[in-house]
Amino acid sequence: MAGYPNAPPNYGYGAPPPYGQQPYGAPSAPYGAPPPADRPPQDPYGASLPPAVGGYPPPPGASPYGNPFAALVPSQFPPGTDPNLVACFQMADQDGSGLIDDKELQKALSTYDQSFGMRTVHLLMYLFTGTNTRKIGPKEFTQVFYSLQNWRGIFERFDRDRSGKIDANELREALLSLGFSVSPVILDLLVSKFDKSGGKNKAIEYDNFIECCLTVKGLTEKFKERDTIYSGSATFHYEGFMLTVLPFLIA
Amino acid sequence: MAGYPNAPPNYGYGAPPPYGQQPYGAPSAPYGAPPPADRPPQDPYGASLPPAVGGYPPPPGASPYGNPFAALVPSQFPPGTDPNLVACFQMADQDGSGLIDDKELQKALSTYDQSFGMRTVHLLMYLFTGTNTRKIGPKEFTQVFYSLQNWRGIFERFDRDRSGKIDANELREALLSLGFSVSPVILDLLVSKFDKSGGKNKAIEYDNFIECCLTVKGLTEKFKERDTIYSGSATFHYEGFMLTVLPFLIA
Repeated sequence: MAGYPNAPPNYGYGAPPPYGQQPYGAPSAPYGAPPPADRPPQDPYGASLPPAVGGYPPPPGASPYGNPFAALVPSQFPPGTDPNLVACFQMADQDGSGLIDDKELQKALSTYDQSFGMRTVHLLMYLFTGTNTRKIGPKEFTQVFYSLQNWRGIFERFDRDRSGKIDANELREALLSLGFSVSPVILDLLVSKFDKSGGKNKAIEYDNFIECCLTVKGLTEKFKERDTIYSGSATFHYEGFMLTVLPFLIA
Repeated sequence: MAGYPNAPPNYGYGAPPPYGQQPYGAPSAPYGAPPPADRPPQDPYGASLPPAVGGYPPPPGASPYGNPFAALVPSQFPPGTDPNLVACFQMADQDGSGLIDDKELQKALSTYDQSFGMRTVHLLMYLFTGTNTRKIGPKEFTQVFYSLQNWRGIFERFDRDRSGKIDANELREALLSLGFSVSPVILDLLVSKFDKSGGKNKAIEYDNFIECCLTVKGLTEKFKERDTIYSGSATFHYEGFMLTVLPFLIA
């Protein structure tokens, strides 16, 4: 592993490129600068979530690529879950099956937060279950809820003028605070995708910010699974590559 | 390279898995069977297109990952282009700039073919220019037109009952005829994505078939660029992985 040879020459806004040392951009040294004092220390993959809900749990019996069509095993609420959250899930789970589907999740989330597009809901379901079944149980619902609460806090911290939007630079800082250091080229790609004006406004609203976070976090974690020694590079077989990438297109 | 160890045990419908020998599934040995007599021989990456328009041309000055924000260099129509096609482009290019944008391409294509969603149009533009500029010139327009004509022919060949839809098995055969052998798990993922009913009907309409072809072809070609010895595996740096995958999400 010899760093990231394709980084543009002026990469890093004058700071040494962080990729050579830390391929996934741990925020302890974002662009060579120490973390701001008002930002709590976090692990490189956004572990500021409560321990019970940090990261994406591997589904039971998961293959190296996950099984996108595995049935979801019914789950339980973690001990001490907020009763309001339990009530919210039970309201959504009208048939008492212990699982809620995509439309029910979309409705339940809009109770607590603003509305989300179905693509964002599908991406949430895929990443928190590791399957393509589009149903989640109490445990995954709790994880989704607390993750969104965490990301909402991050969004609001960077939306300093309370416009409901963050710009490209704020998006970069927000992703850094989640533990993801993205290059200027990737940042441009993300803004062109997740800006509702198609890149004209260069601004990201909250629901698209969530989709952006899910995409960067999900792809980075999938890559990291193949890069067990943190070398910054990973080898895929063709089948594994397609099974890694397609679910993000499919959500 | 030791084949595709994660292929399911019963993979290949009783035939030996083709992946070990031909990682991208050349149709000369699809699932161990000879190609049907009525199917013309093709190269593994869909080279049944006219030579002038086969494959995706690397844009001028392309980096190993392409530059998604490179400006498109104005191009010319290939010698002998159908005058109707030239007229169609000129009608779309109202300001005579030599380039047409996404909305103009969408309109121009619906003159000759049925309508396409903007996501499909963006994916076409990305794959035929290697950039994210969302403008194409005469050369790329010609390539898009003849590729769609080719894919239309393939779709109609497999839509035997003229329902306007093909099922999962027909999609597998259609992709094979383009040179892409996909495993049952990938096929299921593709159908769940590109079926407008969300996987309930297990049927793909023409516009989604085109998006499916573009996705499989585009991702496979990106992978193949990293697998120069056809070993079936490829190594990505993190930055390169993200720059390879994100444009497919972004289209």
